[in-house]
Amino acid sequence: NERAAARRTAVKTYYNYIGGEWVRPAAGEFFENINPADTRDVVGRFPLSTAEDIARAVEAAADAFDRWRRTPAPRRAELLFRLGEILVRNKERFAAEMTREMGKVLKETGGDVQEAIDCTYFAAGEGRRLHGFTTPSELPDKFAMCVRQPVGICGLITPWNFPMAIPSWKLMPALICGNTVVLKPAEDTPLSAINLVKACEEAGIPPGVVNVVTGYGETVGAALTEHAGVRLISFTGSTETGRIVASKCAERNAICSLEMGGKNVIIVMDDADLDLAIEGAVWGAFGTSGQRCTASSRLVVHKKVYKRFSQMLIERARALRVGNGADPETEMGPVINADAVAKIMGYIEIGQREDGAKLACGGKRLTNGEYAHGYFIEPTVFVDVAPQMRIAQEEIFGPVTAVIPTDSLEEAIEIANGVRYGLSASIYTQDVNRAFHAMNEIYTGIFYINAPTIGAEVHLPFGGTKATGNGHREAGTQVLDIFSEWKAVYVDYSGRLQRAQIDTAKME
Amino acid sequence: NERAAARRTAVKTYYNYIGGEWVRPAAGEFFENINPADTRDVVGRFPLSTAEDIARAVEAAADAFDRWRRTPAPRRAELLFRLGEILVRNKERFAAEMTREMGKVLKETGGDVQEAIDCTYFAAGEGRRLHGFTTPSELPDKFAMCVRQPVGICGLITPWNFPMAIPSWKLMPALICGNTVVLKPAEDTPLSAINLVKACEEAGIPPGVVNVVTGYGETVGAALTEHAGVRLISFTGSTETGRIVASKCAERNAICSLEMGGKNVIIVMDDADLDLAIEGAVWGAFGTSGQRCTASSRLVVHKKVYKRFSQMLIERARALRVGNGADPETEMGPVINADAVAKIMGYIEIGQREDGAKLACGGKRLTNGEYAHGYFIEPTVFVDVAPQMRIAQEEIFGPVTAVIPTDSLEEAIEIANGVRYGLSASIYTQDVNRAFHAMNEIYTGIFYINAPTIGAEVHLPFGGTKATGNGHREAGTQVLDIFSEWKAVYVDYSGRLQRAQIDTAKME
Amino acid sequence: NERAAARRTAVKTYYNYIGGEWVRPAAGEFFENINPADTRDVVGRFPLSTAEDIARAVEAAADAFDRWRRTPAPRRAELLFRLGEILVRNKERFAAEMTREMGKVLKETGGDVQEAIDCTYFAAGEGRRLHGFTTPSELPDKFAMCVRQPVGICGLITPWNFPMAIPSWKLMPALICGNTVVLKPAEDTPLSAINLVKACEEAGIPPGVVNVVTGYGETVGAALTEHAGVRLISFTGSTETGRIVASKCAERNAICSLEMGGKNVIIVMDDADLDLAIEGAVWGAFGTSGQRCTASSRLVVHKKVYKRFSQMLIERARALRVGNGADPETEMGPVINADAVAKIMGYIEIGQREDGAKLACGGKRLTNGEYAHGYFIEPTVFVDVAPQMRIAQEEIFGPVTAVIPTDSLEEAIEIANGVRYGLSASIYTQDVNRAFHAMNEIYTGIFYINAPTIGAEVHLPFGGTKATGNGHREAGTQVLDIFSEWKAVYVDYSGRLQRAQIDTAKME
Amino acid sequence: NERAAARRTAVKTYYNYIGGEWVRPAAGEFFENINPADTRDVVGRFPLSTAEDIARAVEAAADAFDRWRRTPAPRRAELLFRLGEILVRNKERFAAEMTREMGKVLKETGGDVQEAIDCTYFAAGEGRRLHGFTTPSELPDKFAMCVRQPVGICGLITPWNFPMAIPSWKLMPALICGNTVVLKPAEDTPLSAINLVKACEEAGIPPGVVNVVTGYGETVGAALTEHAGVRLISFTGSTETGRIVASKCAERNAICSLEMGGKNVIIVMDDADLDLAIEGAVWGAFGTSGQRCTASSRLVVHKKVYKRFSQMLIERARALRVGNGADPETEMGPVINADAVAKIMGYIEIGQREDGAKLACGGKRLTNGEYAHGYFIEPTVFVDVAPQMRIAQEEIFGPVTAVIPTDSLEEAIEIANGVRYGLSASIYTQDVNRAFHAMNEIYTGIFYINAPTIGAEVHLPFGGTKATGNGHREAGTQVLDIFSEWKAVYVDYSGRLQRAQIDTAKME
Repeated sequence: NERAAARRTAVKTYYNYIGGEWVRPAAGEFFENINPADTRDVVGRFPLSTAEDIARAVEAAADAFDRWRRTPAPRRAELLFRLGEILVRNKERFAAEMTREMGKVLKETGGDVQEAIDCTYFAAGEGRRLHGFTTPSELPDKFAMCVRQPVGICGLITPWNFPMAIPSWKLMPALICGNTVVLKPAEDTPLSAINLVKACEEAGIPPGVVNVVTGYGETVGAALTEHAGVRLISFTGSTETGRIVASKCAERNAICSLEMGGKNVIIVMDDADLDLAIEGAVWGAFGTSGQRCTASSRLVVHKKVYKRFSQMLIERARALRVGNGADPETEMGPVINADAVAKIMGYIEIGQREDGAKLACGGKRLTNGEYAHGYFIEPTVFVDVAPQMRIAQEEIFGPVTAVIPTDSLEEAIEIANGVRYGLSASIYTQDVNRAFHAMNEIYTGIFYINAPTIGAEVHLPFGGTKATGNGHREAGTQVLDIFSEWKAVYVDYSGRLQRAQIDTAKME
Repeated sequence: NERAAARRTAVKTYYNYIGGEWVRPAAGEFFENINPADTRDVVGRFPLSTAEDIARAVEAAADAFDRWRRTPAPRRAELLFRLGEILVRNKERFAAEMTREMGKVLKETGGDVQEAIDCTYFAAGEGRRLHGFTTPSELPDKFAMCVRQPVGICGLITPWNFPMAIPSWKLMPALICGNTVVLKPAEDTPLSAINLVKACEEAGIPPGVVNVVTGYGETVGAALTEHAGVRLISFTGSTETGRIVASKCAERNAICSLEMGGKNVIIVMDDADLDLAIEGAVWGAFGTSGQRCTASSRLVVHKKVYKRFSQMLIERARALRVGNGADPETEMGPVINADAVAKIMGYIEIGQREDGAKLACGGKRLTNGEYAHGYFIEPTVFVDVAPQMRIAQEEIFGPVTAVIPTDSLEEAIEIANGVRYGLSASIYTQDVNRAFHAMNEIYTGIFYINAPTIGAEVHLPFGGTKATGNGHREAGTQVLDIFSEWKAVYVDYSGRLQRAQIDTAKME
Repeated sequence: NERAAARRTAVKTYYNYIGGEWVRPAAGEFFENINPADTRDVVGRFPLSTAEDIARAVEAAADAFDRWRRTPAPRRAELLFRLGEILVRNKERFAAEMTREMGKVLKETGGDVQEAIDCTYFAAGEGRRLHGFTTPSELPDKFAMCVRQPVGICGLITPWNFPMAIPSWKLMPALICGNTVVLKPAEDTPLSAINLVKACEEAGIPPGVVNVVTGYGETVGAALTEHAGVRLISFTGSTETGRIVASKCAERNAICSLEMGGKNVIIVMDDADLDLAIEGAVWGAFGTSGQRCTASSRLVVHKKVYKRFSQMLIERARALRVGNGADPETEMGPVINADAVAKIMGYIEIGQREDGAKLACGGKRLTNGEYAHGYFIEPTVFVDVAPQMRIAQEEIFGPVTAVIPTDSLEEAIEIANGVRYGLSASIYTQDVNRAFHAMNEIYTGIFYINAPTIGAEVHLPFGGTKATGNGHREAGTQVLDIFSEWKAVYVDYSGRLQRAQIDTAKME
Repeated sequence: NERAAARRTAVKTYYNYIGGEWVRPAAGEFFENINPADTRDVVGRFPLSTAEDIARAVEAAADAFDRWRRTPAPRRAELLFRLGEILVRNKERFAAEMTREMGKVLKETGGDVQEAIDCTYFAAGEGRRLHGFTTPSELPDKFAMCVRQPVGICGLITPWNFPMAIPSWKLMPALICGNTVVLKPAEDTPLSAINLVKACEEAGIPPGVVNVVTGYGETVGAALTEHAGVRLISFTGSTETGRIVASKCAERNAICSLEMGGKNVIIVMDDADLDLAIEGAVWGAFGTSGQRCTASSRLVVHKKVYKRFSQMLIERARALRVGNGADPETEMGPVINADAVAKIMGYIEIGQREDGAKLACGGKRLTNGEYAHGYFIEPTVFVDVAPQMRIAQEEIFGPVTAVIPTDSLEEAIEIANGVRYGLSASIYTQDVNRAFHAMNEIYTGIFYINAPTIGAEVHLPFGGTKATGNGHREAGTQVLDIFSEWKAVYVDYSGRLQRAQIDTAKME
């Protein structure tokens, strides 16, 4: 129709950012970024880049590397502090544009930008830290220490559910460690990545240090992963894609850091504050329409409170206001795109047909009225779920949660650990012994006591065990172990050959 | 002949150690461990294990895991302190047996055992450390911290050049972190691994916690790498094998830590103490017959001192006493086996024919007299080597070093960085500015000032950049980042739902 | 009588240990060390030293200092590991002799020696750590780091209640940091200190590194504190003496670390596991006859369980077997000496007369039968104690505890904080929120959840706030901050003058 | 005269800042702040406060304490980040006003403000760090960790030579740790302190958290030191005053951190880059007119280069442009006040008469022309100084330096260590062995290689040994150990009484 056509005409075109320039993609093609709450709304046209764009970006990053790594880290930090100020000033606009391109409600996109801000200040704080250690040598007149050195050019591949936060998690530590980067944001949310990179430009980060190339994973993502000049790939996304990324990195011996799927659990014990647990479960399961790797997709509830908990949860789920995230009244937005709708509706089908679980509420796509042009799905609760059912084992990444009854804490822990993923887990109990016992026994990367499975802070390690990751952690000071490599340094000032482990006997 | 036959009859048979028992391999086959200084001397018969043995060992490790990880780390440490005492008591015997099975001189095998001792005490010291951090939460009445948790069952694949040290580097931190392990030592040096594991048994480390399965990489190494129950593979060996290991791990999302090849460089500047530099170069190039990942296989020498340095080096190389390492007079032992002889002689050929470098001394296999039954190669020096020659680019892993002339420190640094590996580098200069500049510019995992490229101490990170590793570091406290995974823990004791990044504005 | 005379004849004489020699005191006088469970039993005769002995010991320590600080810390650590083994071997004998000289039961003196062992191994572990940090400079071509350096000669003044543990807490970190020491143990327990120092000698710690001078605080303690050659005094004892020590140190600008009194509190909430709380309270209040700086001398109990708790406590207190600590059946030994009896009985008097608290059990000195020759006092419980009473404010250092009723957690916290000391506090509650709230609000150096106020482990910081200390902490890695001083090191290898804070603008 | 009168009329009056209000001093009296480059210029009138003002300020700080310590540290940090931005915006004005009140040249006052900025951002970075550690307990089902807690109300007493930097060094870490403070700036430089505190106010730091009371040390400094409500005194100033402060703190068991005098040394070896060494010596000796605790007041020069070095130094010293620091051409400003003139001129007298050293240049007060109304002293060099002379032993705190010849590095080190102070030392040598040997042997808190004794960066520990300090360090993360106290926390979730060191044997 006309209105759409008019809007389309007005659609803004964005470019890749390579070597400090905003440049058209080599092949000259673009794709459209669509608002998932209203598919008639085209957010912008973005470069449909190819391997050639990646090659240019890597070259730019390589050119910028030596100067950037030699810039004293406290100076690099000053640019990040300035960047932090710029993000603070633009928080509202960035949040609004993020809601438009990926759907989550304004409070959450505000939180997303805030996370980028926190992360920027936190990483900047490493400018005067980046601590290695000094330590005594076992030999006289020999000095020993270790220092961090940048790894080189880093390829960052980021998902759409935290369009500014996750790029920041990777970008800021990469920069403060002295690396240069090529960022490949998800094709669903290029605008937020470009907003972030424009802020970097405004902050004065030198040309070539940060580069962004938009496009699809199969092309530009793959090209970045396979590029011989890229020393490190930091990937956040699905376990399936992550495995491909890891294999490609293994072939060429690149460093590879993966943050992947989750099937996170809240355990609710019989002594829990149920109101609080419900608050947590609703927020954990339906925040970001369940599209978080840390979403509370399993609720393991003690049988003594199972009935009441389920009833309360269903009531709350039913009452959630679904709608366009830009409306401040909305509590839950759309899911990201048509594929996501298909996958989630498929799992709802599986839950009912294959698994034989009980659909307690939701379960339908919303298509009427305000929902007509968006990807809306009802908040969905399955009850009487058994731990081995597919909906209790596989990552759905949508507003669907599974309530699983349990007899005991020990069984609940077993259920919690009984999935292939190991990202986040939580327990609601007032009992300190139970809480600490569960903390000790549950094998995940994140654990909460009396909070849902979401809510990580930027200064603590983030990531998971088993199929969720490959041992690395983002955020916290731990992220430095991804983006820098240790150099052990020994200074022998004795003026003679001294052999460690061999010449050690002759003391005094 | 008779003597050999007699010896053969007396050859001792060793077994795998699985679940606290010394057991025959499932397939009932064994291989012989031969003394490289005298191939008539069979050190022992060792299990030629198969995937079935690996499966049993992994099962034993799995059975032992929960009890071991729940054992307070300070108690685990007490066993390691006891183990340290046992190793100290047996140092001489272990060294002698190691020299017998792999050839390096007694001083060096003593150093190897000493490194195992140092490493054991160092890891034991983590029993009361294993520090995570506590940190303030951004929300009131919320507590935040992170703790280390074991990763599970660890497969350790170790080479023959440091038969006790390298297994210890992996085993001790794995144990103190609460993991259980399956160790697959190199087929050339099973005895030292078994000596180590027997000491573990004597120290009281519980059954199933440490398991050892001997055999070949293609069978048991591969089986261990591919076993679904093994969460982590820690591999030390060639870059080629490492790549295969990494790919297999990537496929099943196992954690993979690699320590691989090196092409290490000593830079000798014109202001260097030449006597000291020669001492270092000889020790760095010919120690362990050059069979160290950190061997000084490239000597980049400033033109002003190039002639004199080369002459001195050649004299020293020629004078080295080659022989059976068990003889205290011997300065350099044999190489490990016939394949090694072939590979090294091949490179000496390449150096002369293909590269056109100048063979200044050595270059021949020794086969007369005392050398008749061993794998002896002369200390070999190439001079007038250009940086891009194959002998200056590829890892030879034998008593061969290449002297490369240079005009300046900047060029020397470029040469140093101009190989695919990034393990160790060193500079001989008296000048503090040059030393620190080189330290800053050379991209390796280890760097020495006025010492050769070998001589790492157990409490500093060990490993390399580029094709040498995949970002991890062994030894130091950094090794804990391989053998444990972080768990971030948040305790919300506010009694209300608090959302990080979102509820942070309302500070009053 | 005859028997006593005979024993006296057989009494062993001990000497000071100075510069590696066991030497008579300069003035030639000795004092007797008496068994508090049987005053007829003379444990030994010990040097009644004078300032001259201190002067000699400081001189010996000064002579040994340079060599010791230059000994690589990993070598110093090897001696400590050896020392640890020696202590393990002698644990039983040391415990028995300790019980004889100071009275606490064998289990506790065994624990005391064990603490020395733990502390020794823990400090030894710092030999390969003693981490300083490296960090980027704000200027190019400038390197920055910090390292620990020893402070010099340390004077250690230790009390009688942990005769081996507390000297070890100070001695081991002092040694590993490279200091030399003069130890002045309490006059009531010189034997345990001498046992410790003999073990040091046996371990091969060089002459002059550790020196011990026995005698009285007013003479040798004062002489040590005032000696110009002593850079640091580490004192554990009463707040009154500590203040004098601090003033003397202030006058001559010596470093001074103080661990002093406590008035520690257990809070018992209405939801606590009362059996567990009683176990904890009995152990906390009457362990070591209440003669611990961390003794649970105040029990603040929620009114809902106050009656029951008090009744249970009284029953348990009454049932405690008091006697000679050498008897394995004994649960509580004597107090240390006649002065202690007088002071404690004085407080029992004050509690009844001045404070008007209710004496619920105990309160008497035991003088009949087996108690006739020892310093035995009944386990004593006051109930209905008000927070401001003297027995609830002042340190009694004996088997006396005060039960204080409370209405709420907030009030309990206020009571807990309402004393001049700030050493240890604990809460018994099952509720995780209450536990963490109390942890956050109580201003002490140690805090326990569901454990009594005693039970510190050697690898965590030990010490207190307010009148308990002057900001330092022993044990943990924090103790290194007492026994070493930081040296910040900057290496400017730019070849030009660079001015921090001034030349930083010109980043290009 | 008229002009002065006019100026005096226009003189601005400043107030104390207490509880968020700018208030007149209780006694209603004020003192004048005079420009040392022109005593006719009155910078402002400032409260001549009394003990009553201190009492009010402490009360305000006490009132604000609970709320501030409970504010999440990341929120406290946000205020500091905002404060950092405000300081950046006002840098030029603050520098100009600082030059006016204390005389040093604009570049240096700019550096002073920059240091406050750096320090603010660095401390803010601790908001999401303030790391304590978690660590395994020796007992099963027991959790152990330590956290930092604020100490309470901190009294900060600061000198005039770094009027904004030093208050910031103390204030920022005090704030981020959760303390509230009363700042007593030097009477010579109250304006810079007030500028700093006004910026705090503008940043939104809550009322009562930061309080400033101006006046004299004998009255308000003493009152602050003696106030029972002040838990910690952090003092920077002379060793003499520091000793008094320490004694007063000792009496009432307050925590006391001292940064005091220095007699800092540059060693110049015969292989040094002499031009560089001269640059460093001039900047180190005459920067801030020598009024730095780290001033290079001793230059120990190897005899081989002694003559040349001395000659070059004298030439450079003579050529220095002395004048009003506000003039951009000025290289050295006045000293702070008449007392300083008297003291410095006294030492110049001592150097010539008593010590018998050779005055090589300078030595006179400048009183003509532009100098007529200021406290100007010529850059003064003594040569042929012997190590034991008073001018080589005592702190002069003015533009006077002493050149001491030496024969060897060992002697130079002995001279370096041969003073009562231990703040800063430096060596100029190109030789890496000498540099590291000196680094290891010189017992100071700061050490430079090829840089003068000044130039500390805010993220490294600052402070000295011996009479310079009492063991603490400011700046770096070490400063947190002053402004926070450790709390060790143990959570026993086993449900049974477990006794550390005693119940540890029964591992099963």
